[in-house]
Amino acid sequence: MFSKETYIKRRELLRERVSRGGLILLPGNSEAPRNYPDNGYHFRQDSNFLYFYGLKLPDLVGLLDIDAGEDWLFGDDLSMDDIIWTGPQPTVSELGARCGISHTAPLAVLQEKLTLAIRKGRPVHFLPPYRADNKLKLSRWLGICPEAIADRISIELAIAIVSLRDKKSDEEIREIEDACEIGYRMHTTAMKMCRPGARERDIAGAIEGIALEMGEGVSFHSIVTQHGETLHNHGHDGILESGRMLLVDAGAENLMNYCSDFTRSYPVNGRFTPMQRDIYEIVLAANAHAFEMAKPGLLYKEVHLACVKVILEGLKSLGLVRGNMDDAVANGVHALFMPHGLGHLMGLDVHDMEDIGEKYVGYDLETERSTQLGVSNLRMARRLQVGMVMTDEPGIYFIPAYIAKWKAEGTNREFVNFDKLEPYMNFGGIRIEDDLLITETGNRILGKRRIPVTVQEIEEFMVGDR
Amino acid sequence: MFSKETYIKRRELLRERVSRGGLILLPGNSEAPRNYPDNGYHFRQDSNFLYFYGLKLPDLVGLLDIDAGEDWLFGDDLSMDDIIWTGPQPTVSELGARCGISHTAPLAVLQEKLTLAIRKGRPVHFLPPYRADNKLKLSRWLGICPEAIADRISIELAIAIVSLRDKKSDEEIREIEDACEIGYRMHTTAMKMCRPGARERDIAGAIEGIALEMGEGVSFHSIVTQHGETLHNHGHDGILESGRMLLVDAGAENLMNYCSDFTRSYPVNGRFTPMQRDIYEIVLAANAHAFEMAKPGLLYKEVHLACVKVILEGLKSLGLVRGNMDDAVANGVHALFMPHGLGHLMGLDVHDMEDIGEKYVGYDLETERSTQLGVSNLRMARRLQVGMVMTDEPGIYFIPAYIAKWKAEGTNREFVNFDKLEPYMNFGGIRIEDDLLITETGNRILGKRRIPVTVQEIEEFMVGDR
Repeated sequence: MFSKETYIKRRELLRERVSRGGLILLPGNSEAPRNYPDNGYHFRQDSNFLYFYGLKLPDLVGLLDIDAGEDWLFGDDLSMDDIIWTGPQPTVSELGARCGISHTAPLAVLQEKLTLAIRKGRPVHFLPPYRADNKLKLSRWLGICPEAIADRISIELAIAIVSLRDKKSDEEIREIEDACEIGYRMHTTAMKMCRPGARERDIAGAIEGIALEMGEGVSFHSIVTQHGETLHNHGHDGILESGRMLLVDAGAENLMNYCSDFTRSYPVNGRFTPMQRDIYEIVLAANAHAFEMAKPGLLYKEVHLACVKVILEGLKSLGLVRGNMDDAVANGVHALFMPHGLGHLMGLDVHDMEDIGEKYVGYDLETERSTQLGVSNLRMARRLQVGMVMTDEPGIYFIPAYIAKWKAEGTNREFVNFDKLEPYMNFGGIRIEDDLLITETGNRILGKRRIPVTVQEIEEFMVGDR
Repeated sequence: MFSKETYIKRRELLRERVSRGGLILLPGNSEAPRNYPDNGYHFRQDSNFLYFYGLKLPDLVGLLDIDAGEDWLFGDDLSMDDIIWTGPQPTVSELGARCGISHTAPLAVLQEKLTLAIRKGRPVHFLPPYRADNKLKLSRWLGICPEAIADRISIELAIAIVSLRDKKSDEEIREIEDACEIGYRMHTTAMKMCRPGARERDIAGAIEGIALEMGEGVSFHSIVTQHGETLHNHGHDGILESGRMLLVDAGAENLMNYCSDFTRSYPVNGRFTPMQRDIYEIVLAANAHAFEMAKPGLLYKEVHLACVKVILEGLKSLGLVRGNMDDAVANGVHALFMPHGLGHLMGLDVHDMEDIGEKYVGYDLETERSTQLGVSNLRMARRLQVGMVMTDEPGIYFIPAYIAKWKAEGTNREFVNFDKLEPYMNFGGIRIEDDLLITETGNRILGKRRIPVTVQEIEEFMVGDR
């Protein structure tokens, strides 16, 4: 964890930014049962709790008393029976000292404090719980039924936390770059394993093993598929075939739970066909365009729109779309080929703060969510600021069911040459993703070395030593 | 999955065994959020749902109408938006056909059916939910508050399911042996990686990667530790030191989610010291004693008591305990060195059916849980039957905090030579675990090849090729 001064300072800033006063309740996570109560998944602490307390143990709760300026940490110390199973563990008091908190107490005291606050009519601020057990805990602590919790979350707290977490400090950037190095190892291992006859499952297992060796495991379920046109394809049942593209979208969490997120797409046999190269170069140009463009003050929505125009211009040069490309973007033609946004914030979550809600993370008062085709699906639309870490992940996909739907309904038929898409129905999809840091002068790509990305780099890396 | 006839037959038997009639509600699992709603852990289907339906997709619910003899499967088909992200998926109707169910419907129909049944006063049988989201679903479907659910579970259903799942069919045994082969690969890889200077984390990552390559991942969080005296040590932060023992307790789930569970303990440098060898041989003798003894009709509690006596006799020969060893076992002296039971049932869960409750799985009307030291902690005490798969996992641990407690409180001081334990305070712990199938004539060890286990096998395997 960082020094205790870091956490003290973060909590001070948070108290200042919630002007309404009252209590801020930040529950950590508990173990998540897999197939019975005591068989938990690999423990993952809540990211907000990590940001303000840095402690990676389950069943802890933070409480900030804004009015009294007090910081509390609640948790129950272990019994002798626990110690036989878990070994000696720090006491809650020792854990508090690590993050600069002197007020610690058992969980029963938390209930007393909350009951008293509610009786006095003091506001209790909390974020939307994404785990059902935390929903049940909030329900019990605050005496409200589980269904009513969504209506009682604190928007002021949500906005305050986003305003702190969205800009990364130098020490946070170092952790993210550490996660990027794990990602480099994962992706280059996948490239070396990729060849006709290899199993998607073997590659997925190998790279998830690397993520566990070097850090806290993957930052999300790895996508390792010859069917890149399925955006979140979590199956790993395929056997790699010469002539197809493999898409690998994977990242890691380092030991501090900071994330990386990269995508590479490459031919199974290591050599691009002309058709694959044509599509690949368009996606790479869009990926590069975001790097050329992204800088403080620009809306990420503008970067998205500029990059999808690069994609449409490229597809036009291949004859797959037609007409004026500004009009095409305005009509959302790109959504057929890239039905997702250019990227998202990244930090302690791979989709940073997605638990708090995209409305507060990717949008703000200035930039509200649009309902328009081709921009309605953006995770991040608002203005870039120095210290933000963004993914840049354009793609081109040929999704047979979606193309058939547009064709049948005549959607954007003045722009799309549906007949020309026929040869691509078995193409799959390509995505290229890197992580960038917004700097004073523009941005820089994160990671001490970039995963091979040009056609030449990929072909040399994959077949150069065969 | 198995043939649909297998699942039809299992559900028929279940309906027959719940004589009270009514409805049996078997909810499958949903995605389990890690750090925000859409970032799920690797999906794990509920084992009871797997047993009766064999389907590995989230958000499905099974309902058996005992009185009407009807089988229902509920779930919602995907929209076009879903298909973009997940690819084409089978419909609920197609899924039903795979497991022999013709009555399928959206989840909204389930709510109607349940509401009607409750209005008519028909019993609705369900098992204890171990995930909070399923608790909330049951609360909503049945109109009872979450806190009251524990009091409403169906003991008749619990006993009926245990009576089916506790004896494995030949096709299930084949799946378990497949999981054992993954376990063999994991453990022999760990042994080959084990040497002074290696990191626990590297070994844990490598073996969890193998579990993902060959199956559905680990059957529980791997224990890879030089501190084997901590029974469920989930930290992987150590660096291996010459002179210490490494304990690896790990297993896998195969592609059908059948489990394996093995433990091996070996010297970091590949050569046992005389002290390590002495303790190891005692544990191995206890492990072998269980294989010699286990057969249908015997209480597993009796096997446990016989094995801990082997352990105490061994410790007596080293001068660590004294007196009559039958009296020592009766007084629970072994609990100081082995504070856990000899083993547990294994199948679709590594601790099979632990979600249903040990009271119904490891105990029965004949064999109730004891409160006595040294037997109160058994997961499994009742009579062995042909087809049961058991772990056999004796151990000897030197737990400084626990020894200090017994010494201070004078517990069993007539049997324990506390002074003689001093040289062992930094020893750690040893456990040896294999999986056995109870057969007509006794039992057999599962797995087509046994992981090296004798002192000679381990030393040859670890240092033979260095």
